Amino acid sequence: MQFKITFLGTSGTVPTVERNPSSIFVSFGGEKILLDCGEGTQRQMMVAKTGFGVSSVFITHMHTDHFIGLFGLIESMSLNGREKPLYIYCPEPRFLRGLFSEFGYDSLDFSISVTRLDDGDVVRFQNFSVVAFETDHIVRSVGYIVVEDDFYRFSPEKAREIGIPPGPAYKKLASGQSVEWNERLITPEMVTDGIVRGRKLVYTGDTRPSEKVVNAAMNADLLIHDSSFTSDLQEWAEYTKHSTAREAAEVAKKAGVRRLVLTHISARYSKDAAPLLSEAKKVFPNVEVAEDFMSLELHRDKPR
Amino acid sequence: MQFKITFLGTSGTVPTVERNPSSIFVSFGGEKILLDCGEGTQRQMMVAKTGFGVSSVFITHMHTDHFIGLFGLIESMSLNGREKPLYIYCPEPRFLRGLFSEFGYDSLDFSISVTRLDDGDVVRFQNFSVVAFETDHIVRSVGYIVVEDDFYRFSPEKAREIGIPPGPAYKKLASGQSVEWNERLITPEMVTDGIVRGRKLVYTGDTRPSEKVVNAAMNADLLIHDSSFTSDLQEWAEYTKHSTAREAAEVAKKAGVRRLVLTHISARYSKDAAPLLSEAKKVFPNVEVAEDFMSLELHRDKPR
Repeated sequence: MQFKITFLGTSGTVPTVERNPSSIFVSFGGEKILLDCGEGTQRQMMVAKTGFGVSSVFITHMHTDHFIGLFGLIESMSLNGREKPLYIYCPEPRFLRGLFSEFGYDSLDFSISVTRLDDGDVVRFQNFSVVAFETDHIVRSVGYIVVEDDFYRFSPEKAREIGIPPGPAYKKLASGQSVEWNERLITPEMVTDGIVRGRKLVYTGDTRPSEKVVNAAMNADLLIHDSSFTSDLQEWAEYTKHSTAREAAEVAKKAGVRRLVLTHISARYSKDAAPLLSEAKKVFPNVEVAEDFMSLELHRDKPR
Repeated sequence: MQFKITFLGTSGTVPTVERNPSSIFVSFGGEKILLDCGEGTQRQMMVAKTGFGVSSVFITHMHTDHFIGLFGLIESMSLNGREKPLYIYCPEPRFLRGLFSEFGYDSLDFSISVTRLDDGDVVRFQNFSVVAFETDHIVRSVGYIVVEDDFYRFSPEKAREIGIPPGPAYKKLASGQSVEWNERLITPEMVTDGIVRGRKLVYTGDTRPSEKVVNAAMNADLLIHDSSFTSDLQEWAEYTKHSTAREAAEVAKKAGVRRLVLTHISARYSKDAAPLLSEAKKVFPNVEVAEDFMSLELHRDKPR
């Protein structure tokens, strides 16, 4: 199952010529979700050719550069004839519901539900969950863990032992589906040599580094962390409740993540983010700086 | 004095890869104003290098694709340290004031005033006025006339007659300023052979063609008219209260304008607007289709 991440907006609070405000498109199997939805997100989606088929939008906090794109997106969805409900999750649902009501969205042809998420709350999808975790910003804020369900690693030996010869059934079992064989139901847990941890993406939104973030990011395949500034603006980062590149790297290191991507890039580094990168690299080598339309995939570990 | 128009967004309700939602930047002498401010306008301003020094924003109606860009723009202005007040004019100030209050804009370092404009209301600037006129859309809506003050055409003959020799004084008088000459105040009306009509730009916003629009556009140097569709979608244009390219051209012809620019281009013509252009050309030849970042100047007539 494909687990693909496309950065739609990587700027700090103020966009730049190069960078749109915050939004990340995540496609997992057939499911498409957005993490944040800053101004201009719908047009970034068009450029990136993601389509508008997102089921859910997860907003980290109610700052304009993280949610104001919802309005244009919702209206375009409506003009495109959307009928499927749209699920929006955020830390301040009343505020958003109030705005939607004032904008007349109660009478659209599709329903919009706005649900509050707090630390530890879980939203279930077909093969993965989105888990909210508390972050440390100026306003109430959460980050999101997108984590694949753990699955049974398929063992061809075990399959052969119970009499299934190599063929299409192997592929089904390896992808987590059950098969019928000689009028017997074979489930993946019957042909496994162990459980494999699902792939895990963690997105912080805007935050100071914190114990909560480290815990949420533990062993993630990918951590996308606020990295607004370099360390020479340490005090400013603390005052504005953002993180420096070094702090983001320290979180990545403590959490033992595989890969770190820096985002929410202040306008001062918009064209040349090398200062952020080199600072982070000293602490955590497997790091890169997000760019608008950068796209990457999280792959399952190859079976040993 | 330079009278320059830059199209920041030329799409219909739904933006496209090529076109941002509605906004037009107008620079007149030292004064900078916006006509409408759709999603993403602040970033379009960055690309077009207009700067954020707009004093006033004129919104034609309260549809998201015409005003939602105000939020990002205002917050960026605030982060950039703006102190000068921002004047916003629109047909529904209460709605906007309520939103601004909910977004916490009452405590910014600069004041935002939101003023209602109805048919015939005038806002004065240094050398020009903006006049609202009623348009015909689904919700309460106005268009805007940006019109330079009439001025006295400078006559070198008259200047020589009263004893002023050619020199720097001529330039001042020709630009509408008074000069002192031999302890006597010489005003432009003392050295003129007639009054010249000021340059005139008319922007409709979203509208059906109407008598009011024709009257507003009368003898304009430039008419920027809603031209969402071609005539094969006549009924749809009537239902959605927009105009076809032919209708826009008919308004231009009736009003005797010099030049017509079609905008609010439906997504179906976003890449290739030739169908709109050829339909309009049959009725009014001096027409073009707006493109994002297209820029044009209105020149004063050369003295005869």
